[in-house]
Amino acid sequence: MALGEFDLIATCFSRPTPRAVLGGGDDCALLAPRAGHHWAVSTDTLVEGRHFLSTVAPAALGHKALAVNLSDLAACGAEPVACTLALTLPHIDLPWVQALADGLYTLADAHGIELVGGDTTGGPLALTLTVMGEVPAGQALRRDGARPGDALWVSHPADGGIGDARLALEVFRGTLSLPGEDFARVRRAMEWPQPRVVLGRGLRGLATAAIDLSDGLAGDLGHVLTRSGVGATIEAAALPRSPVLAAQTEAWQRCALLHGGDDYELLFCTADDAATHAQVQRLADTLGLGCRRIGRIDAEPGLRLQEADGRCAPLTARAWDHFSGAAT
Amino acid sequence: MALGEFDLIATCFSRPTPRAVLGGGDDCALLAPRAGHHWAVSTDTLVEGRHFLSTVAPAALGHKALAVNLSDLAACGAEPVACTLALTLPHIDLPWVQALADGLYTLADAHGIELVGGDTTGGPLALTLTVMGEVPAGQALRRDGARPGDALWVSHPADGGIGDARLALEVFRGTLSLPGEDFARVRRAMEWPQPRVVLGRGLRGLATAAIDLSDGLAGDLGHVLTRSGVGATIEAAALPRSPVLAAQTEAWQRCALLHGGDDYELLFCTADDAATHAQVQRLADTLGLGCRRIGRIDAEPGLRLQEADGRCAPLTARAWDHFSGAAT
Repeated sequence: MALGEFDLIATCFSRPTPRAVLGGGDDCALLAPRAGHHWAVSTDTLVEGRHFLSTVAPAALGHKALAVNLSDLAACGAEPVACTLALTLPHIDLPWVQALADGLYTLADAHGIELVGGDTTGGPLALTLTVMGEVPAGQALRRDGARPGDALWVSHPADGGIGDARLALEVFRGTLSLPGEDFARVRRAMEWPQPRVVLGRGLRGLATAAIDLSDGLAGDLGHVLTRSGVGATIEAAALPRSPVLAAQTEAWQRCALLHGGDDYELLFCTADDAATHAQVQRLADTLGLGCRRIGRIDAEPGLRLQEADGRCAPLTARAWDHFSGAAT
Repeated sequence: MALGEFDLIATCFSRPTPRAVLGGGDDCALLAPRAGHHWAVSTDTLVEGRHFLSTVAPAALGHKALAVNLSDLAACGAEPVACTLALTLPHIDLPWVQALADGLYTLADAHGIELVGGDTTGGPLALTLTVMGEVPAGQALRRDGARPGDALWVSHPADGGIGDARLALEVFRGTLSLPGEDFARVRRAMEWPQPRVVLGRGLRGLATAAIDLSDGLAGDLGHVLTRSGVGATIEAAALPRSPVLAAQTEAWQRCALLHGGDDYELLFCTADDAATHAQVQRLADTLGLGCRRIGRIDAEPGLRLQEADGRCAPLTARAWDHFSGAAT
């Protein structure tokens, strides 16, 4: 008999779930939410050919599918608790699925999140994860709390910046060429993003607003500005860039930094005073990350880019469009 | 500018969510679980060409995508609270999506569940819903509680039975032909299933085990038997069938009743005494449903089918396989 859905689940997706009241194998998983906490929920789909290439290593795909969802919990300051996976496969390739599961479980274990259920079905390759996390009631980071005068920050790898994932995408598209070592670096940024879960938790009570960077800095910041009813000015020179990005043309740098997508760093706002700056810096140091002040929140609506010489120009938020597969 | 992801969400999926602390539009939705309750979570994917035909009316598709998920909450006796929708669309057809949203919201309103978030992306047509519900701690219906001597029950429409959805599928496949009115009836069973949410809630404290019928009675019952470590005997004559099904050949009846799939009725076990029977009957009457005692749980493992003349034969659980699209 051919390998079926139930064999696949039994082989690849049946690890113990000690935190759940009841894990997989029933109609529903059962969880016990903590008293005094809110439940944060988010869902994200990855479709072959749109969110990942067909050649991606399955372990990287499993990692990324969970990482982009954990990134949403991070942006709310929530602690990961449980997730479900809806996996649609054109055919059953057991070693491939096993590698995908390994990539997913390794990241799940690192963040203490349990895969408690899911659905496996035949069809064009796609993954939908739903993640659930807990945050003390009233302490969730939200998009709507930015205030004029706030400092605007972005997290980044200690030795890097934002925009590297976009460079990797452009190499795959053939519009950009990079030396092998540089390509390996930006490809890692694209395929193995690190969700800033611990940073998000540390920003509770410190950040006035937060969002994760998934569609590009300008577009994602636009959501914060709209929901908070404010504007912002970004200082172009302050945007953190990796050595690979810094070696590109100014046009490529601007594109990757402002409209890159797939960064999964946190963009957040705080009070703009020395004590708060020191707190953010201490948090970043503790976590081995960078957190860079890249601008400020303004009362005046709209998004502006300020050059090193002081010139300031409006910046259009070109959000990544998941239908056209292009920044619009 | 072409209609994009954010327009689609704003137009079709932005109704108020008064029960949620925070609904759509942020990185996560925020919910406030009730104290003393467990959180029941389930996810189900519907893929075009496998779970629904490309010609299905979008309102029916929206209804069914939520119904099959609510059915999982029903099987646990959980009250629906919130859901997320991951929608993958080959292109944006606004009236089509609006109709799908209407079908989904109408059923959501009927069961008091709120759509609190989701993801919309381009790709082959598919829907993944994740539903969340609440059940008082320790009162969830589970698959693992069936005991030898229990009565085995199945719910059904007051004027119908199980298996009708399978007849409709066979008409679409061209292997069966039905008069127009009969086809309309079984097609309604296939396209507009009614999740037994209120029944599931009513069975708390009464049912020892429960599951919803999605892959066919024999296969789904098999899950209960395996997890409970018991066997069962089904009485063939007791299986509830609609007038349309009762008019088919015995072979078709057996296939549809035992291996049909897509029924979304509840299969459950209770104590097998007169007082419990009366309680189940009262519950069924109250809800305008049928609940039929179709057999019993045995200590002896395995599943048996007992004919009207008393003969008894082993029954193979052919669960619906979501990869091959066939009962195996």
